[in-house]
Amino acid sequence: MSLASSLNTRAARVGVGLSLLLASPSLIAARYIDQKTYDEFLEVTLHNDSFFTISNAWILICTALVFIMHLGFASLEAGLTRRKNTINILYKNVFVITSGLILYALIGYRTMYPGTDFNGFMRLGFGLGANPDDYFDLMTPLYAEYTYWTDFLFQGMFAATAATIISGAVAERIKLGAFMILTIFMVGLAYPIAGSWTWQDGGWLNRQEFHDFAGSSVVHAFGGFAALACVLQLGPRLGKYSKDGIKPIIGHSMPMATMGAFLLWFGWFGFNGGSVLSAHPEMISLVLVNTCLGGAAGGLTCMIATQVIVKKPDLSMILNGMLAGLVSVTAGADYMMPYGAMAVGAVGGVLVVVAVVLLDKFKVDDPVGAVAVHGVCGSWGTIAVGFFGGANLLTQLLGTLSYSIFAFAFAFIVFFLIRITWGVRVAPEEEEEGLDLAEHGQEAYSLEG
Amino acid sequence: MSLASSLNTRAARVGVGLSLLLASPSLIAARYIDQKTYDEFLEVTLHNDSFFTISNAWILICTALVFIMHLGFASLEAGLTRRKNTINILYKNVFVITSGLILYALIGYRTMYPGTDFNGFMRLGFGLGANPDDYFDLMTPLYAEYTYWTDFLFQGMFAATAATIISGAVAERIKLGAFMILTIFMVGLAYPIAGSWTWQDGGWLNRQEFHDFAGSSVVHAFGGFAALACVLQLGPRLGKYSKDGIKPIIGHSMPMATMGAFLLWFGWFGFNGGSVLSAHPEMISLVLVNTCLGGAAGGLTCMIATQVIVKKPDLSMILNGMLAGLVSVTAGADYMMPYGAMAVGAVGGVLVVVAVVLLDKFKVDDPVGAVAVHGVCGSWGTIAVGFFGGANLLTQLLGTLSYSIFAFAFAFIVFFLIRITWGVRVAPEEEEEGLDLAEHGQEAYSLEG
Amino acid sequence: MSLASSLNTRAARVGVGLSLLLASPSLIAARYIDQKTYDEFLEVTLHNDSFFTISNAWILICTALVFIMHLGFASLEAGLTRRKNTINILYKNVFVITSGLILYALIGYRTMYPGTDFNGFMRLGFGLGANPDDYFDLMTPLYAEYTYWTDFLFQGMFAATAATIISGAVAERIKLGAFMILTIFMVGLAYPIAGSWTWQDGGWLNRQEFHDFAGSSVVHAFGGFAALACVLQLGPRLGKYSKDGIKPIIGHSMPMATMGAFLLWFGWFGFNGGSVLSAHPEMISLVLVNTCLGGAAGGLTCMIATQVIVKKPDLSMILNGMLAGLVSVTAGADYMMPYGAMAVGAVGGVLVVVAVVLLDKFKVDDPVGAVAVHGVCGSWGTIAVGFFGGANLLTQLLGTLSYSIFAFAFAFIVFFLIRITWGVRVAPEEEEEGLDLAEHGQEAYSLEG
Repeated sequence: MSLASSLNTRAARVGVGLSLLLASPSLIAARYIDQKTYDEFLEVTLHNDSFFTISNAWILICTALVFIMHLGFASLEAGLTRRKNTINILYKNVFVITSGLILYALIGYRTMYPGTDFNGFMRLGFGLGANPDDYFDLMTPLYAEYTYWTDFLFQGMFAATAATIISGAVAERIKLGAFMILTIFMVGLAYPIAGSWTWQDGGWLNRQEFHDFAGSSVVHAFGGFAALACVLQLGPRLGKYSKDGIKPIIGHSMPMATMGAFLLWFGWFGFNGGSVLSAHPEMISLVLVNTCLGGAAGGLTCMIATQVIVKKPDLSMILNGMLAGLVSVTAGADYMMPYGAMAVGAVGGVLVVVAVVLLDKFKVDDPVGAVAVHGVCGSWGTIAVGFFGGANLLTQLLGTLSYSIFAFAFAFIVFFLIRITWGVRVAPEEEEEGLDLAEHGQEAYSLEG
Repeated sequence: MSLASSLNTRAARVGVGLSLLLASPSLIAARYIDQKTYDEFLEVTLHNDSFFTISNAWILICTALVFIMHLGFASLEAGLTRRKNTINILYKNVFVITSGLILYALIGYRTMYPGTDFNGFMRLGFGLGANPDDYFDLMTPLYAEYTYWTDFLFQGMFAATAATIISGAVAERIKLGAFMILTIFMVGLAYPIAGSWTWQDGGWLNRQEFHDFAGSSVVHAFGGFAALACVLQLGPRLGKYSKDGIKPIIGHSMPMATMGAFLLWFGWFGFNGGSVLSAHPEMISLVLVNTCLGGAAGGLTCMIATQVIVKKPDLSMILNGMLAGLVSVTAGADYMMPYGAMAVGAVGGVLVVVAVVLLDKFKVDDPVGAVAVHGVCGSWGTIAVGFFGGANLLTQLLGTLSYSIFAFAFAFIVFFLIRITWGVRVAPEEEEEGLDLAEHGQEAYSLEG
Repeated sequence: MSLASSLNTRAARVGVGLSLLLASPSLIAARYIDQKTYDEFLEVTLHNDSFFTISNAWILICTALVFIMHLGFASLEAGLTRRKNTINILYKNVFVITSGLILYALIGYRTMYPGTDFNGFMRLGFGLGANPDDYFDLMTPLYAEYTYWTDFLFQGMFAATAATIISGAVAERIKLGAFMILTIFMVGLAYPIAGSWTWQDGGWLNRQEFHDFAGSSVVHAFGGFAALACVLQLGPRLGKYSKDGIKPIIGHSMPMATMGAFLLWFGWFGFNGGSVLSAHPEMISLVLVNTCLGGAAGGLTCMIATQVIVKKPDLSMILNGMLAGLVSVTAGADYMMPYGAMAVGAVGGVLVVVAVVLLDKFKVDDPVGAVAVHGVCGSWGTIAVGFFGGANLLTQLLGTLSYSIFAFAFAFIVFFLIRITWGVRVAPEEEEEGLDLAEHGQEAYSLEG
């Protein structure tokens, strides 16, 4: 434990050292931009363009909603796992959102939106902007219906999501330091590169007219299959699979899990609503109707499927059913009518039950069902735009496969390298004791007093 | 237990079978609407009308806030009841919001807003829209300051609330299946019919100029008196009333209950704010000031009343005091000045204490105080618009009585029919054991590991 | 205990009696304003001015977000303290928000924004408005980009925050009644007077061009140093400091604390975003980017600092690190570039660890770290606008010192007077037993059933 702790310390130091190094020239630049620039800045008054002003405010509100999804993920994950690993899970989630935003500012944003000199596949870029003038050039209605800053913040909240999805799947046995290193690579590098394929003009999938509205593949399948790559190397939790069969490991707080699922749905208003990238009234309305009906249908069909397959009204399953519906409808929420969205969500709600059961059969131990919810239903939702929306089915297949394979391969390699150097799994006695005591020296709940 | 479980399964199957049957023609239609319609759809660019665009975005944000009230209700209810029934309560609340939205899409919305061919009292309608053209016709500024989709989603979130109110009152002893059937009738049928009386042009109370701004009667008194009808048939929880007097049954988590009450207030920003049906600046501002001052006054006077009557600073009571203030001010939040709203909320905060104590005297066992908060204070708030706002007192009385009586009668009959066929109450040994184990075979909290 | 309880009762009676007395003339006036005024009211249709309408809606949404910070504060405080004091903490927080809003309506708002006849230092004012005509005169675009009501509600949510900050520092041993009296003076009197110095045109710090955008000093340092004044008189919790050294008193629920910190960040979108006082697109975007990067940087550097100083990944510390970053960036979020904001937050995240450790050395027992987070980082953030933004360093120093000293002195005197009359600390046996049983006669969690 003292070794792990000292390694964690070192890892953290390296990470932040790197950050400061990258930031320093910009910090100097930032200091430079004082009164004069500030005055110029205020002079550009876009607020005379109402649609721009409304859209910008709308997307910022959506950004706040996507932010609170990180509390949703943390609660869902902590609720569905054991009491003894709670602090560890919360800590991971705090790390993901804080490091995610900083990494996105330093590397991710420019990598994902490299601008015109982009070969369509991959580019590494640093800093929020190459030079101060960019800030103002980019803040015009010609560019989009929102400012450059808004764009960064909304996209930054998305970036952290990919790592959050992995967090759930590897819970209860991953080393804290290993997760932190993985997060830095996934959020800082893999996600921005993959994201640019579809969401940057000129990205190779963008040119194919691959349709993934708010990220069933770009975010969810990406996260889900990266999670799978890690879980396969990490192995199941101790005692999960034995010759006596599969031992159910019950989550320690269903109210917390339920709160997490509701907060995620709440956040999805922003995740999908903001992805319209303006406040276009029909579009945001249609998208949110589709989102909510998809989630509701997923929850309902999952209830039936659970009753049929698992033979009891299992709360944790139907929470995943709602999320499955939401993930499924995310790719085509702008591109189908409400009854189509209902059908897509309904299929997602059944798929997730099947996937959870199958993964368990193949001894893939995913404590929160992240691979099933985000990987399987993310792929389904992307393909479904070819059935229920106007997209080309083959292109949708190509796109979702590209994301799944890339995420899986990238995460597999990075995780493999971490595994052979740092190690990815805590010692059995630490796992037994719980990561809260082993890694953090503290318990999540105290009955004392 | 296995019988209950198999019945639950059957009930769920019937419910969803029915849903799919209703949805199938529309699903085909939905598939039909592809590229051409989609292009037309995008062509209608209402975003040139700023007020329309702002209002539409405002109401969608309010919709998200009303959505999160469902987490608020779930938390309040679970927190104020016993540990052993927690999963059951959460499950019910997930069912309410998922089935509520789907039912509202399939039946409720067209029943509540039947359009021009409406006799003023009751009409049954199916589907989000009769034909695709409706979508576009209805999405014009002539209709309202928001799109057809937005209207559906905002109203759909309200619809589920009625059943949620009942959920709390019948907690800890109702059969899961019985609650599900009741929910389907209340959300799918009773609420939309009653709602159309006031909120659809030409509804009979609408023609009387009955003023119920955001639903003190239409939603809250409706839910509260429906809850009363069920509680009276269901009977009190085991051991609640005995010859030794009234046994207080303490809720298992006051933090959860508090979170629920705060989330409900948070959601009320949307519940009342969105009910302005536009972003009209003075109106939404006045309404939210009145809403918050009403809730604050209710909380404060409830503190005093509790101190005087119950003789201790009882947290669960003042949470209900805040909600009582909010419920009370909901009918006239658009129709009175802030000090009026404060007075209305203040009275509500006292009324709720009196009502809780009286109902307990009459052995009406309502674990969360739903009848007192929503029924009694909803009625008070509606009548108060005749005192503190500009409405006619007699009309207000007529309106709130109509809602209370209709909700009570409708719920009484449906619940009676469920009682004599399916049964409404779990067996005493199941109640003793707790519904989590008896109905779901799982516990909400696990101390293991 | 029965004495404390009866005193509490009496205090509550006096408080509300006073409120009703103040309100009664206005209530009569409110009743007076009926149909005619109401019609006039609706006639003023500012919604033709799009920027006004958008800005007004934006600030109301921000108001809702600031409201939910009160749940954030309650959760953080309850999570970081012991189980036996949970109900007491939640009750205090409910009292703060309910009484805070009412007090702000009756006294605070007019004291803080006294209008033109203001000598620049202090004025006491009553009521939301002197006479009904004010409402309409003040609701014009000439005044601001939002209505009078919106202004009141947004500012009212801020007012309650000051007392909430104190609540955490004095937790686990303060008498409920003492806290309630203190709250009334801080929210009703001290905060509005101090707030007017900077945020009312003509206030003496406003004339000095002191720059405190959203209240690093006006709200946070104010609350933090008021808290310090109370903690010094109240003394540490029993057993905290002994000859055996410092005994760590562990919080009873880290998930609750984490939820609190996330909700606070979520609310900060409104706290800082709304402080732009319009929906000016570049401004709200820049402010929210700075806010989030400040919080993220604070969380990250706090992780390192904690690892270095405390030698373990301490969750409660990094939660405070995020908050420290947010508090720090609040004064200059509108006045620096993103990398500057990152630097300000990063320093805050280190400062908080140092401050927590130092305060503990000096035996200042602050259970939640409120003095460190709000007092120290609030001061740092204000001064930092002189380094990273365009403000004058000396003016910033003057401003933050003025707030710290005034808050400390005012709170010290009021708390001293309460101490020698009413008493501020519960009896040792009550502290041992826990305030939930001693003051409220109930426990926060029940395992029964």
